[in-house]
Amino acid sequence: MEKIPILKMGKLLLVTIQVDLYDRLAEALEADLVQMINKTGAQGVLIDISAVSIIDSFMGRIIGNIATMSKILDAETVVVGMQPAVAITLIELGLPLTGVYSALNVEKGMSLLQGKINLKETGFIPEDDGDTE
Amino acid sequence: MEKIPILKMGKLLLVTIQVDLYDRLAEALEADLVQMINKTGAQGVLIDISAVSIIDSFMGRIIGNIATMSKILDAETVVVGMQPAVAITLIELGLPLTGVYSALNVEKGMSLLQGKINLKETGFIPEDDGDTE
Repeated sequence: MEKIPILKMGKLLLVTIQVDLYDRLAEALEADLVQMINKTGAQGVLIDISAVSIIDSFMGRIIGNIATMSKILDAETVVVGMQPAVAITLIELGLPLTGVYSALNVEKGMSLLQGKINLKETGFIPEDDGDTE
Repeated sequence: MEKIPILKMGKLLLVTIQVDLYDRLAEALEADLVQMINKTGAQGVLIDISAVSIIDSFMGRIIGNIATMSKILDAETVVVGMQPAVAITLIELGLPLTGVYSALNVEKGMSLLQGKINLKETGFIPEDDGDTE
């Protein structure tokens, strides 16, 4: 199984990383993802890395690349489920993942992205628009 | 990475199978999933097998087991993203996956499960489940 599936959920795409990303797999993921954003008009990408217990500079860079590519195609990227040790390693590697949002789990990531999409579409985050009119 | 992540999304759990399931991994997945259903009170399980291009009787049986376990814990299972060749193989293996619902993709699987959950809770499927604008 040499392919990381990209799941479409409404305006979002979900990618779950469960295997070590080697060169070709990472390239294929990047290519698939940009194609999928283009095809579906997705406005957000969720990358779940809860199964990733060891991260290296290569994988860190790939995540950064994906975020940058998505951004150019007008989709925000949120990394979810990062294990504490992975966060420590990323900082020690000097990869603070700039331009990548993060959230504790998929649900929080989805609501973060949903908020950003609403903000982009309507110009404001809908709350109970009561007093200011 | 010896663990298949289970993502909680509202009342549903999502499992993406990307690697070959061997004995121990399959057992761990079953155990994790029943624990997760128990902990979260999830009412539906989505198993995405779009990355699975070759299926054997072991994996077929595991999917059947998961569905049966979930059913006992009052959660329905939907298998999504099955490749045509996999469907053919399952039938040739004599594994028609009884008790498992299936859907073409995650979105359709989610709406199928949502319909079932609504049906269980209210006794009828609402025509338009109040999407806010």
